[in-house]
Amino acid sequence: MNTVEESTVFVHPAAICEASEVGEGTRVWAFAHVLARAVVGRDCNIGGGAFIEGGARLGDRVTVKNQVMIWDGVTIEDDVFIGPGVIFTNDRYPRSQRMPEVTAKYSRRRNWLVPTRVCRGASIGAGAVILCGTTIGRCASVGAGAVVTRTVPDHRLVAGNPARSIGWACTCGTRLDEDLGCPQCGRCFILGEDALVPAD
Amino acid sequence: MNTVEESTVFVHPAAICEASEVGEGTRVWAFAHVLARAVVGRDCNIGGGAFIEGGARLGDRVTVKNQVMIWDGVTIEDDVFIGPGVIFTNDRYPRSQRMPEVTAKYSRRRNWLVPTRVCRGASIGAGAVILCGTTIGRCASVGAGAVVTRTVPDHRLVAGNPARSIGWACTCGTRLDEDLGCPQCGRCFILGEDALVPAD
Amino acid sequence: MNTVEESTVFVHPAAICEASEVGEGTRVWAFAHVLARAVVGRDCNIGGGAFIEGGARLGDRVTVKNQVMIWDGVTIEDDVFIGPGVIFTNDRYPRSQRMPEVTAKYSRRRNWLVPTRVCRGASIGAGAVILCGTTIGRCASVGAGAVVTRTVPDHRLVAGNPARSIGWACTCGTRLDEDLGCPQCGRCFILGEDALVPAD
Repeated sequence: MNTVEESTVFVHPAAICEASEVGEGTRVWAFAHVLARAVVGRDCNIGGGAFIEGGARLGDRVTVKNQVMIWDGVTIEDDVFIGPGVIFTNDRYPRSQRMPEVTAKYSRRRNWLVPTRVCRGASIGAGAVILCGTTIGRCASVGAGAVVTRTVPDHRLVAGNPARSIGWACTCGTRLDEDLGCPQCGRCFILGEDALVPAD
Repeated sequence: MNTVEESTVFVHPAAICEASEVGEGTRVWAFAHVLARAVVGRDCNIGGGAFIEGGARLGDRVTVKNQVMIWDGVTIEDDVFIGPGVIFTNDRYPRSQRMPEVTAKYSRRRNWLVPTRVCRGASIGAGAVILCGTTIGRCASVGAGAVVTRTVPDHRLVAGNPARSIGWACTCGTRLDEDLGCPQCGRCFILGEDALVPAD
Repeated sequence: MNTVEESTVFVHPAAICEASEVGEGTRVWAFAHVLARAVVGRDCNIGGGAFIEGGARLGDRVTVKNQVMIWDGVTIEDDVFIGPGVIFTNDRYPRSQRMPEVTAKYSRRRNWLVPTRVCRGASIGAGAVILCGTTIGRCASVGAGAVVTRTVPDHRLVAGNPARSIGWACTCGTRLDEDLGCPQCGRCFILGEDALVPAD
């Protein structure tokens, strides 16, 4: 990883990139804002209007579509897809921080900041909202418009508000058929102890 | 339709309009971004922060409220209302396109791009998410916050996640009463073979 | 309250603040747009990409997170938290205003504009959608991703689409336990005639 100045990072003239740790080949599009102390890996695509706060960490080859908001405390592993308008959170019971009754709560970051993780190869569909304290498993898929309130296991496909399991997602993203085969790429899986594993 | 240069299109100084096919009288507001090869009709209003990708097509007199995202593959007919923060999609099972396991899938547009259509006079409420492959019928109304997973017939009023029918919408947008009359404008309808038609 | 010119208001160089009534100590971040005739109190924080329309009124110490949209007709009292991507509405049955069939409806503001109020100390979670004509009570909490279709009483905690009560919120925001005590700050409440009141 290089600093932005030395690298091949593309920052659209109408974007603001204040982070020094942005990997080579990453592109930041119009009206996006990447704050100082955000960490973004190589070959990522940060869509227009997206917001990445200091303290957020993104791996390599991550796709962040337009208007996504990623806060301090959120970790995104390699090869993740974050759909348009997806919103993360980092405070379970937020109040306005300048409200007199909550001065004590917001005096310490550990009183309110709760982390979230999205594991390698997962996808989060358009407009989904991810409650903090959850983990989205490897190659899991969150349906568009879902509200994720609990951890999603690897390869699980969830949808709804609150999000519930509606099936399994292939490595390639496609919904597996009932025999746990992929109608798109032909991969096959078997179900171990509540975990999906490749059949080969 | 004229090119932007010749027409009476208004583009806010803080907006970016790269499309050459934008109809007369259309206004594009601050921080909106209309990409090259998007087609936008006459007398449209493109709200602040909205994003219209190349390949998207909008008719005349369309209202696109702030922060709406319209992608390649989406067609919006005349007189449609797209509420604030509405999100379209064009990939049923998205993954990050640079993830090594999905290189083949994303090498051809037809492998993943699925179109969507919104028909004349329809409305989509604030924050709704529209899954690709669906059609929103003429004068149909999608309630605020709905997640549309299936085609919505003409004049149908749908709401919820997933969106389900909760009644009928008048041409003027108002919910029809049980006798299929409109309490706002007085229009009356009759129900044909699962299609609403004017009573006159 | 002072005019922006005379006050200590901070407006990010990439923001647009056209309102003259913005209170001291308020900050407006990148790509936010505060329109003329919006009223914003003291010590507010208007997050990046937020949009506040003329006619909207915000009290003091309000937190408006990124990409929130607040329209004409919406009143936000002191110490309210509006989470990222929250969307208000002000038209129950919207149509595109230039659609020929609705010219009469949109010729008068009172034909369509419906007000909304958020009372002191309330919180609205990330990505929630608030239908117009509702009131969010004092210290009420709306869960992330909720779609609020009805008025929320003081201290009520609601979630889902449509939003339903799932418990009670303390003044500090934390969910109360079954005995109506707060596990975070120790405040205790008693239930009067469907209204929560402090126990002391």
